[in-house]
Amino acid sequence: MNERELHELLTAVSSGKLSAGKAVQRLKHLPFEDLDFAKVDHHRALRQGYAEVIFGKGKTSAQVAEIVRSMLRHKASRQNVLITRADAKIFAAVRRANRGVARASKFYPLSGVITIERSSEISGKGVICIVSAGTSDIPVAEEALLTAKMMGNRVEHLYDVGVAGIHRLLQHRDKLTSARVVICIAGMEGALPSVVGGLVAAPVIAVPTSVGYGASFGGVAALLGMLNSCASNVSVVNIDNGFGAACVASCINRL
Amino acid sequence: MNERELHELLTAVSSGKLSAGKAVQRLKHLPFEDLDFAKVDHHRALRQGYAEVIFGKGKTSAQVAEIVRSMLRHKASRQNVLITRADAKIFAAVRRANRGVARASKFYPLSGVITIERSSEISGKGVICIVSAGTSDIPVAEEALLTAKMMGNRVEHLYDVGVAGIHRLLQHRDKLTSARVVICIAGMEGALPSVVGGLVAAPVIAVPTSVGYGASFGGVAALLGMLNSCASNVSVVNIDNGFGAACVASCINRL
Amino acid sequence: MNERELHELLTAVSSGKLSAGKAVQRLKHLPFEDLDFAKVDHHRALRQGYAEVIFGKGKTSAQVAEIVRSMLRHKASRQNVLITRADAKIFAAVRRANRGVARASKFYPLSGVITIERSSEISGKGVICIVSAGTSDIPVAEEALLTAKMMGNRVEHLYDVGVAGIHRLLQHRDKLTSARVVICIAGMEGALPSVVGGLVAAPVIAVPTSVGYGASFGGVAALLGMLNSCASNVSVVNIDNGFGAACVASCINRL
Amino acid sequence: MNERELHELLTAVSSGKLSAGKAVQRLKHLPFEDLDFAKVDHHRALRQGYAEVIFGKGKTSAQVAEIVRSMLRHKASRQNVLITRADAKIFAAVRRANRGVARASKFYPLSGVITIERSSEISGKGVICIVSAGTSDIPVAEEALLTAKMMGNRVEHLYDVGVAGIHRLLQHRDKLTSARVVICIAGMEGALPSVVGGLVAAPVIAVPTSVGYGASFGGVAALLGMLNSCASNVSVVNIDNGFGAACVASCINRL
Amino acid sequence: MNERELHELLTAVSSGKLSAGKAVQRLKHLPFEDLDFAKVDHHRALRQGYAEVIFGKGKTSAQVAEIVRSMLRHKASRQNVLITRADAKIFAAVRRANRGVARASKFYPLSGVITIERSSEISGKGVICIVSAGTSDIPVAEEALLTAKMMGNRVEHLYDVGVAGIHRLLQHRDKLTSARVVICIAGMEGALPSVVGGLVAAPVIAVPTSVGYGASFGGVAALLGMLNSCASNVSVVNIDNGFGAACVASCINRL
Amino acid sequence: MNERELHELLTAVSSGKLSAGKAVQRLKHLPFEDLDFAKVDHHRALRQGYAEVIFGKGKTSAQVAEIVRSMLRHKASRQNVLITRADAKIFAAVRRANRGVARASKFYPLSGVITIERSSEISGKGVICIVSAGTSDIPVAEEALLTAKMMGNRVEHLYDVGVAGIHRLLQHRDKLTSARVVICIAGMEGALPSVVGGLVAAPVIAVPTSVGYGASFGGVAALLGMLNSCASNVSVVNIDNGFGAACVASCINRL
Amino acid sequence: MNERELHELLTAVSSGKLSAGKAVQRLKHLPFEDLDFAKVDHHRALRQGYAEVIFGKGKTSAQVAEIVRSMLRHKASRQNVLITRADAKIFAAVRRANRGVARASKFYPLSGVITIERSSEISGKGVICIVSAGTSDIPVAEEALLTAKMMGNRVEHLYDVGVAGIHRLLQHRDKLTSARVVICIAGMEGALPSVVGGLVAAPVIAVPTSVGYGASFGGVAALLGMLNSCASNVSVVNIDNGFGAACVASCINRL
Amino acid sequence: MNERELHELLTAVSSGKLSAGKAVQRLKHLPFEDLDFAKVDHHRALRQGYAEVIFGKGKTSAQVAEIVRSMLRHKASRQNVLITRADAKIFAAVRRANRGVARASKFYPLSGVITIERSSEISGKGVICIVSAGTSDIPVAEEALLTAKMMGNRVEHLYDVGVAGIHRLLQHRDKLTSARVVICIAGMEGALPSVVGGLVAAPVIAVPTSVGYGASFGGVAALLGMLNSCASNVSVVNIDNGFGAACVASCINRL
Repeated sequence: MNERELHELLTAVSSGKLSAGKAVQRLKHLPFEDLDFAKVDHHRALRQGYAEVIFGKGKTSAQVAEIVRSMLRHKASRQNVLITRADAKIFAAVRRANRGVARASKFYPLSGVITIERSSEISGKGVICIVSAGTSDIPVAEEALLTAKMMGNRVEHLYDVGVAGIHRLLQHRDKLTSARVVICIAGMEGALPSVVGGLVAAPVIAVPTSVGYGASFGGVAALLGMLNSCASNVSVVNIDNGFGAACVASCINRL
Repeated sequence: MNERELHELLTAVSSGKLSAGKAVQRLKHLPFEDLDFAKVDHHRALRQGYAEVIFGKGKTSAQVAEIVRSMLRHKASRQNVLITRADAKIFAAVRRANRGVARASKFYPLSGVITIERSSEISGKGVICIVSAGTSDIPVAEEALLTAKMMGNRVEHLYDVGVAGIHRLLQHRDKLTSARVVICIAGMEGALPSVVGGLVAAPVIAVPTSVGYGASFGGVAALLGMLNSCASNVSVVNIDNGFGAACVASCINRL
Repeated sequence: MNERELHELLTAVSSGKLSAGKAVQRLKHLPFEDLDFAKVDHHRALRQGYAEVIFGKGKTSAQVAEIVRSMLRHKASRQNVLITRADAKIFAAVRRANRGVARASKFYPLSGVITIERSSEISGKGVICIVSAGTSDIPVAEEALLTAKMMGNRVEHLYDVGVAGIHRLLQHRDKLTSARVVICIAGMEGALPSVVGGLVAAPVIAVPTSVGYGASFGGVAALLGMLNSCASNVSVVNIDNGFGAACVASCINRL
Repeated sequence: MNERELHELLTAVSSGKLSAGKAVQRLKHLPFEDLDFAKVDHHRALRQGYAEVIFGKGKTSAQVAEIVRSMLRHKASRQNVLITRADAKIFAAVRRANRGVARASKFYPLSGVITIERSSEISGKGVICIVSAGTSDIPVAEEALLTAKMMGNRVEHLYDVGVAGIHRLLQHRDKLTSARVVICIAGMEGALPSVVGGLVAAPVIAVPTSVGYGASFGGVAALLGMLNSCASNVSVVNIDNGFGAACVASCINRL
Repeated sequence: MNERELHELLTAVSSGKLSAGKAVQRLKHLPFEDLDFAKVDHHRALRQGYAEVIFGKGKTSAQVAEIVRSMLRHKASRQNVLITRADAKIFAAVRRANRGVARASKFYPLSGVITIERSSEISGKGVICIVSAGTSDIPVAEEALLTAKMMGNRVEHLYDVGVAGIHRLLQHRDKLTSARVVICIAGMEGALPSVVGGLVAAPVIAVPTSVGYGASFGGVAALLGMLNSCASNVSVVNIDNGFGAACVASCINRL
Repeated sequence: MNERELHELLTAVSSGKLSAGKAVQRLKHLPFEDLDFAKVDHHRALRQGYAEVIFGKGKTSAQVAEIVRSMLRHKASRQNVLITRADAKIFAAVRRANRGVARASKFYPLSGVITIERSSEISGKGVICIVSAGTSDIPVAEEALLTAKMMGNRVEHLYDVGVAGIHRLLQHRDKLTSARVVICIAGMEGALPSVVGGLVAAPVIAVPTSVGYGASFGGVAALLGMLNSCASNVSVVNIDNGFGAACVASCINRL
Repeated sequence: MNERELHELLTAVSSGKLSAGKAVQRLKHLPFEDLDFAKVDHHRALRQGYAEVIFGKGKTSAQVAEIVRSMLRHKASRQNVLITRADAKIFAAVRRANRGVARASKFYPLSGVITIERSSEISGKGVICIVSAGTSDIPVAEEALLTAKMMGNRVEHLYDVGVAGIHRLLQHRDKLTSARVVICIAGMEGALPSVVGGLVAAPVIAVPTSVGYGASFGGVAALLGMLNSCASNVSVVNIDNGFGAACVASCINRL
Repeated sequence: MNERELHELLTAVSSGKLSAGKAVQRLKHLPFEDLDFAKVDHHRALRQGYAEVIFGKGKTSAQVAEIVRSMLRHKASRQNVLITRADAKIFAAVRRANRGVARASKFYPLSGVITIERSSEISGKGVICIVSAGTSDIPVAEEALLTAKMMGNRVEHLYDVGVAGIHRLLQHRDKLTSARVVICIAGMEGALPSVVGGLVAAPVIAVPTSVGYGASFGGVAALLGMLNSCASNVSVVNIDNGFGAACVASCINRL
């Protein structure tokens, strides 16, 4: 039941067509959320600048292509579409099924991201700076970067600035301090967010990566390091969750 | 907003005292659950036979006594009151503050349970049988037993029937097979639910206890054993959660 | 030794063919369970409505086909046959080897379940409602659904109602509250059973799934979440154990 | 070397008193950070609105009192002072040693926080809403609340709105949606941030607490739940780290 | 039902007082284990040389004293009594309540063992050698030593022969190689059983101890080390389980 | 240096060909173990009845074949040869390279064991009984069985006697109680050794297997269950270590 | 800004072309490390004798070949090049792309190491002795050995000297005690460093390997064993990190 | 048997007093290590400059005092004595029992170290620099500092230089780069060794501390961080093991 329907029901009561008692019955069992279900979704998209997002992993290429088609059909709005954890096969299916946007769609094999850019509007107020420790962390960084861009943010990046060569990081302090939000991506010991957190006043979203071997335990060492960061402006998302970090950052950057 | 209030609002619309538009505004933001908030609680209590329950741990004796007083004052119904994880100090405060029910209240130091029995109505359809492996598991078993009783169930128990002396368990097979629900409590290797589950057709609620040392890891060994039970009628609750097991069992026993 | 053999032995004593002393010797070492070995199994099947079940994983397709043939041959009863964790190769072998039931057998590739339906008798008293959080949890949900059906239950399902969009769940409250048992399946943070448990009076069987990545640790995060549920009508089975949840639910639904 | 000293050095070069070569030598080995060491700290305080903070745990009451005295003496600025993880003994020592601010200092035994309020200036742009699941989570919530206040934020709170009674949370949706940043505190299964994250567009800082027993493993269950949240606007800080959550929230609220 | 009662029943059949059919009914439901319940216990004690054992932890001193009295009263046999994980208070209560054996009872505060020696018969065939790595492992070693002695074994010990000073161990090779069973006790890295296992042909029972700090994780490091021993004659018991190791060793030593 | 060489050296001293001082120098730095290096190995083989063993995993088929050839060449003794964790390719290489024993060699694909039987001498005093819980545990059971046989033991086995159908185990009590050593193999909850340990007086060597899924954590659940066994005659070896269990059992069976 | 540029700036101040104030501005924000960025790198290489190192894992063969070409082009110095975690495909690409050094380059498939030897200068003062426990540890040992050699050290090795055959180790005591640094590599229980540490006075760098199965948990058992070593001259690097151990050893051997 | 005794034995052979055969018998069973047992210990002390060390934890004050007395009595050498993990009570007992050195003995309550300085000889070649991250890490740092001093090293320290304020560390780069060995102590995320390792060419011994709360897991987060350090000159010792780090550093500093 949407607002219009609710209005009609109440008008019927007002005009005597429907008794108060019967209206009570209908309203009592009405799923509350139904009232503004679509609106909530709509509002979230408007406020957070969320692109339409599909988590590709575990879906067939046909399914993903179908969902994209449905998105493009039903939305008058020109929101960007973002598919994460995808592969070349999914990309081919998406392009085949949606020829209208084939030219606007790109596949990034390193991070497994597909983007369909339909809007280049910038809704984030400042710059999101994405910092990563090693070259192996770049796939996660790229997922974060593309997500942040598709959500309407200006993004800068700073790669391969691990803490064992601290001068590489210090050289780029200007870039860091001018960002409104910093996303900090590191595997192994996950020490980068502590150092970066101490250098900037902005909120730092830390992303542990599964890069490493042995006692890195698939990213657990980095995760624990980040949760125990001695810098107090650091919060953490799941291992390898570049997408999530960009969502949080984008959500902050709109404030 | 309860049903009566909703009726009044709609009558106001019906009589022209309130416009349909204003009613829409009020209803649109009305927290849905508010409509039947009290009722839900009421219904749950009626259906599940839940006694009023207070988790004593982390509350001062004064706070617990005050909550009990409030329960006794506001409820015309004569529901039993159950306080778990309590101690002698809390018991003294409860008795002092609620002289009217002092005689009906009892403290069980082994399990730290306080009961205020105000109803002896049996609402469970069958018998809940509580089986425990070792003497050290008895505190958890007692918490389960008292909880099940306060919720209106007939309860039997079978203590100290660990699997290393399987004959002790087999001797009491009749008791086991005649139960409608079985609660199975064990520490150390937590093997009892698998054996019991194979002997009965009833659902078995398994409770791992923190009894043990070394590689029992405070109940983790028993918990894992129970989650991996080769008997397919076994489900599991948290370590030492005798209360929870009795809630689940009671909820089943009312079906 | 079955009942007839025991009778013969005692008749021999009665007729003086066997001395009491010798009978004592024979009976003293008699494996007690041997008396009713077959009966116990028979009784369990009758009471719990268990279909014949084969755990396919780790068995060759020939082995599975052979077990099915043996089941179909020896059982006059028309019980359903259920094979879990199977694949297309096993399915082909089962069909080839059991042509008589080939039309009654189906393979569900998503969950890896094979069913041979020989009875559509409903023995469960109410409806089992299967609720799952995300689309990736559906394979586990399907295993639960097919198991519950093969065991003679009416089953409904509610998929993709994760807690981050709580309105989707609230919209279907009627379905939830009318179920006699609820099976609640979720990966990632495993929060669904707590919310569902608070909405219904029925017992909730929670199934953590291995869906997720990074700090989901193959379902451990969801498992821990469910074991620590603040709703007191929730009990838990092993990660991805849709079959086990349906067994427990079916066993409750027969009470 | 501060800015003035650098100026003097360069003036000496300019006036010929020091050769360019010698200045190179001195500047080459000059610790860079020394230049703006004090300023950086100053800037961080100004920008982030950080009160002066002392982590009380592991320090003697005399040490804490001494640090407070030093803070009060050297700072012309009227920044608030915050001492976390303190006790009554530390509070007494702080009051004795700093009589000038004794009236402005308060001790909150539940959370172990001492505040010395010297400024009531509000520097945060919006409201930080602190939501907690159970009454046992309130100490951590209080640490977050006092930290956020001392850092110049307007703060609202919403306690005891755990997910097993989802209606309690939905009733207060207005409070939630009007906040600029949400801090979400929960022990046990840690499901609250997922539900809250789905209801609001603001960033949600999740704090797992060590509340629980058995398989909560001192907050690990809640921590994992939060890291795996299916709501994409959630990031996480360390277990029981109410202080850290408030720092991150405050840092966002100033953007 | 004991052997005599079974004999009476069969005599009744033999004499025609009881029909074969009725005897079948009684025997069919007779709990099998009841037949030889006492005997089994008796047999186990005779065969394994088990002393009567009480696990003192979690029992009150009154309870332990009462159990001891019951043991001494009912047993004509002169078996040794062993109480593990006890303290001085329990010892006092045991002595007070059992004056007859007060002189025969001893308390070993290091290991918390109480012994009541009533028999010095040696039933083990060879020598059990107890080897421990560091002085802090001696409490566990003492528990093993006293248990083995009370169960009728000749015992030798070799303390403080950790692997970082391998010569200390090699000096005593004769003692090691002449033992029939070796119990090997070590905390920290738990390497001793691997070295000892390589030096002897006898079975080695390894006991990890909780001695250590930091990454010893309360004995987990030692436990894992022992489970992964490259010596193939090593098996392992629980952390700090000196009693269990001695039971296994005693049971082997009687073969 | 062997005993003969030592004798020659001392004869040289005795005859004046070598001064005492020079002999001191040679003996002082003589690696002690060198004296009886071969003998120790020889003795171990004789006493423990160890067959020659090769751990196949991680070795090429050529390497394994070469080691076998060397064993067969250098040993006059007719010891059995055992290769564990092997595959069909290794088996082919072994047969090709060692035609003389090709007929005596067998490959068991289930367990990956290759045996070359050259002696059927029985050196173990009693029977080793191998008990396993489920059909999936049979590969580990087979490794144990073949190892025990190759080391000269009489072996019996009892498969598929898991604790959820306790009657299956009780039926075979005679087989269990007549064994001199029991090897007990189980995955999932690992409860079998506790039940078996309570039924027999013999030492029980427990082997956890990696059979299971979800919270079995690759055998950890079974391992913990066995380490916490409430039966005191149980000791444990590494997960899936059928070979190790048979070594320990064989070593006991020779006592 | 390098030293020359700094000199130019200061010359400009000296000559009056640039005011002291403006120079302060430029220098104040100058990234300090920029001054001697190249030098630091240069110094590290000179002092530590580090070969140029490429971590091959996660890089394409083309990328690795390109990096090697760049190294060879830009460096007048004749430093050795080391590529770790590589494979045959990378080796082929490296040879193709760098024909000038094709003859000097070698690939070691066991450890996945590629070396390009351009200098045979020995810069380490003593011998690094690499000791490993089992044949399966040799790949890690080889990585350590080649790394140490490429960094200019004399290296000896001692393989297959596990602690269960302690005589094998004692035979080679001379080799051990004459080393200046010992690298000790072991999987399974990781006991070797404790024994070796007790035999030598030199620092021992312990490397746990992921060799083992079951409760070795991919090297965790060995790692914990080494961290808890009772020998006080032992420090530890990550699981399978032969490269890291050789770096530490090389760095010590240059002192 | 020492060298002299061996000489006597061989002289007896040489002179015909002892036959070669009998000498073989005596030498064959001679514990090899006995030859140089005392010497080894002596050598280790001389080479490694180890003070006499007593681990105080778990020993009574009387025991420690007695061991100290024995050390002082038997040693002509004037080695320093070091007691770690001690308390005031142990210190009092040591002073009472050893009045001769009472003035030379000191107790450091922060770290629980007692030193008896009898020699101020410096045997280490360079400076050991001890760097720690936070004030709470100082107890562990002090244990390392006093151990290193007692073992004859020049020691410098740098406290409270955590990575969240990187400028504090960079200011003291000279101190760091002039050290021959660096000990790096940090709790929480344990990031300091990675940063320090990148700044210096010397070997860095990393010590994780148990400082932290929540997801620091008693030092595990710091330990994992250090094991995964991206700086290749870092090796690690056990959590809180300041003593061990100083032993390793001292052993290196003597090379």
